[in-house]
Amino acid sequence: MIKGHLLSVADLTKDEALGVLATAHELAQITDGPNKKLPTLRGKTIVNLFFEDSTRTRISFETAAKRLSADVINFSAKGSSVSKGESLKDTAQTLQAMGADAVVIRHGSSGAAKRLADTKWISATVINAGDGTHEHPTQALLDAYTIQHHLKGKGDDLTGLNVVIVGDILHSRVARSNVLLLTKLGAKVTLVAPPTLLPVGVEDWSVDISYDLDQVLGNCDVVMMLRIQQERMLNSYFPTEREYSRRYGLNSQRLSMLKSSAIVMHPGPMNRGLEISAESADDIKSVVIDQVKNGVSVRMAVLYELLGGVALNSEKSGVK
Amino acid sequence: MIKGHLLSVADLTKDEALGVLATAHELAQITDGPNKKLPTLRGKTIVNLFFEDSTRTRISFETAAKRLSADVINFSAKGSSVSKGESLKDTAQTLQAMGADAVVIRHGSSGAAKRLADTKWISATVINAGDGTHEHPTQALLDAYTIQHHLKGKGDDLTGLNVVIVGDILHSRVARSNVLLLTKLGAKVTLVAPPTLLPVGVEDWSVDISYDLDQVLGNCDVVMMLRIQQERMLNSYFPTEREYSRRYGLNSQRLSMLKSSAIVMHPGPMNRGLEISAESADDIKSVVIDQVKNGVSVRMAVLYELLGGVALNSEKSGVK
Amino acid sequence: MIKGHLLSVADLTKDEALGVLATAHELAQITDGPNKKLPTLRGKTIVNLFFEDSTRTRISFETAAKRLSADVINFSAKGSSVSKGESLKDTAQTLQAMGADAVVIRHGSSGAAKRLADTKWISATVINAGDGTHEHPTQALLDAYTIQHHLKGKGDDLTGLNVVIVGDILHSRVARSNVLLLTKLGAKVTLVAPPTLLPVGVEDWSVDISYDLDQVLGNCDVVMMLRIQQERMLNSYFPTEREYSRRYGLNSQRLSMLKSSAIVMHPGPMNRGLEISAESADDIKSVVIDQVKNGVSVRMAVLYELLGGVALNSEKSGVK
Repeated sequence: MIKGHLLSVADLTKDEALGVLATAHELAQITDGPNKKLPTLRGKTIVNLFFEDSTRTRISFETAAKRLSADVINFSAKGSSVSKGESLKDTAQTLQAMGADAVVIRHGSSGAAKRLADTKWISATVINAGDGTHEHPTQALLDAYTIQHHLKGKGDDLTGLNVVIVGDILHSRVARSNVLLLTKLGAKVTLVAPPTLLPVGVEDWSVDISYDLDQVLGNCDVVMMLRIQQERMLNSYFPTEREYSRRYGLNSQRLSMLKSSAIVMHPGPMNRGLEISAESADDIKSVVIDQVKNGVSVRMAVLYELLGGVALNSEKSGVK
Repeated sequence: MIKGHLLSVADLTKDEALGVLATAHELAQITDGPNKKLPTLRGKTIVNLFFEDSTRTRISFETAAKRLSADVINFSAKGSSVSKGESLKDTAQTLQAMGADAVVIRHGSSGAAKRLADTKWISATVINAGDGTHEHPTQALLDAYTIQHHLKGKGDDLTGLNVVIVGDILHSRVARSNVLLLTKLGAKVTLVAPPTLLPVGVEDWSVDISYDLDQVLGNCDVVMMLRIQQERMLNSYFPTEREYSRRYGLNSQRLSMLKSSAIVMHPGPMNRGLEISAESADDIKSVVIDQVKNGVSVRMAVLYELLGGVALNSEKSGVK
Repeated sequence: MIKGHLLSVADLTKDEALGVLATAHELAQITDGPNKKLPTLRGKTIVNLFFEDSTRTRISFETAAKRLSADVINFSAKGSSVSKGESLKDTAQTLQAMGADAVVIRHGSSGAAKRLADTKWISATVINAGDGTHEHPTQALLDAYTIQHHLKGKGDDLTGLNVVIVGDILHSRVARSNVLLLTKLGAKVTLVAPPTLLPVGVEDWSVDISYDLDQVLGNCDVVMMLRIQQERMLNSYFPTEREYSRRYGLNSQRLSMLKSSAIVMHPGPMNRGLEISAESADDIKSVVIDQVKNGVSVRMAVLYELLGGVALNSEKSGVK
């Protein structure tokens, strides 16, 4: 059971991470019937504090919280007093004073979630839903869950699996969190990107680097395509979209290089035709939809563990 | 009981349409006390997927869903990944993967709801809350319900009634759905509009056409004024607002031409002083507020039938 | 127990106001455990009808309503039919027809809430959440509650207390409501502001006026700093921000002039460094966070009393 906050996968032990996956598995099974609700968090208030638009992530957390019977307050910083210059501290303290038991924060600045938790401004549980280019821990947890379910058994770690992550590593909190978590769980990770889209110091990460997608596809178990943020590409990190697509995009030809057991992942939303072709997105190897589904289960597990649910295996009746 | 999706009133048989009205009537009675909630859809998740702003329609569906104890997720496409180019398919599959049992979709393109349902992208129930200039089936159902309640008995069809629909027929999904449904239920429908605001091929519809409002008012039972979309009027479909108002607006003088039993309808929001004068909007013949109220009951009925509620008359205790 | 609407603190008797504070106190105690929800308003629908952005006030009302188990519908007038020219009357009647039991209205025009209630357009309970420069009654109630809790006993009025309100009195509905309520409860109120930020006719209010903050601080029990609306300051009500801050801002030096028992209040959101220094905002004398917390309790009390909860002291079991 994890405790306190969820700020970074770097803070999780391997056992804690596997524990979240196990809880997610239990919750997925319990809520897979016609009635998807558990009374566990009734009377708790969870605030989605979003400084950046992210409808998907917000809805995923909102759905997870409601399935656990919590009340959800959506706080979009746009048009709020925040945009009138209120400090993060005052916003956070306000939310806690209104009774927030947990604050799910998405922020454009790396470290925002940690600052909220570490400064003791609030005592509410803080969950990082993406901070700048730093981390997005629940995304990594749902990705690990999805890999475990497709390629390993329940409770297993990811030892022996080869995961290739392709695209804009430089700006991707998804990549960063996944590298940390998947290697912690025993997987071997290879990053594939143009040199301009790799962060400084990447050679110190516990990963392999490649500039040639075709060379690594044949031997991997998981290929994870990152979203190209088109707004960033104005900065000319690579020549043209077409060139990117040709060198780093997943298409039918590349799909055919994969092992038959390999899976294709993408954190969404996909740019069909850019980093992934429509055929690849819809291919039987694609587990993109499973990722979304598992995202709700994993976020339920995180809320469940952090907000004081009892251990599920030992006292299952307590949550029914 | 209707089943599957609700995409178009063209898909409904007369009996199915009357069945929805009967269910709406039952639900309206059950929920007309201090406690307006039924537990019927507890544990179900309904997503309002709105690509166009429509606060009224969204709130009406949200209220209907909450009265049936469903969880509601509002997804406004503005500022979401949709506006970043995500396909309708990926958006829909994402929502379903998050556990949506029904998707209520409002979209600017005619046929969007049908595309969602027909392509088998998702298995969730799809409800059309307005698609382009095509259809708005729940609006027609609530209008039929309102007419039935004011001018006919419970369970009756609309045979023998003369309904006049006035205004921008060309762009109006409300008009289109009402023509289909009201004629199906036996009413005689007359469209009144300037020639520029009638669609090509209208002569094949089962309606009468008139360019002279004054000539048809004396013999009608229902006069339904359509909203003039002022943003459209830049396109110069008619000379001036004043000219439109003089020839096609409802005012006190025209009210006095109506039969004493006749009713005045408007789908809202009204442009007081343009297509309807303030006095007409507030006249005792106006049933505009009833339409709004009935909208919630009819949308409850649609959600109730499509999401698997039991037949209300045979097993009323089941929903209490 | 208050009844009907809450439009202005001018409408409240002293006993009614103290009654709301007492109810807030009871509700705060009942909901101060792990489960913060009461079933009192289950099946009721409360609409937040906000014509101005105010995330804080909206969330406070939303939280209060949800703690009483009501359903909440958020209606932001931006992008709605209201912005397309729909009248307040039609908007209000629409919301009531959809089943709103109470409408919490924030509007830029002074008198909007009263107009809604007095015109009999709707029968739903109307609660003024801020109308133009006129009133913000729940803010005054939560401020009175906060003062009572810090400086008086439960049930006491505020006789003998000196309250200093500092800043833009001219545009402040918070100041106006507080002057009315605090003097009604027996406090002596002194307004401190530059002459350009005092309303015409202020000499007829039952308050003292001062232009010199330093002169009044030593003798006050409460100093309430108002927010400077920076967008208003384009109108040049005073020379510069720095000049304002120097003459009317609260800082460490001024804090030291206060009695040891005195408290510092601010309705939020604070402009740290303008009307209040960061040190003052975080000083032990600051009760800003308590104000936010008490805001939820006071709004619960208002909803509870207006929507027909039973008297809490006589029948406490009824709400448990």
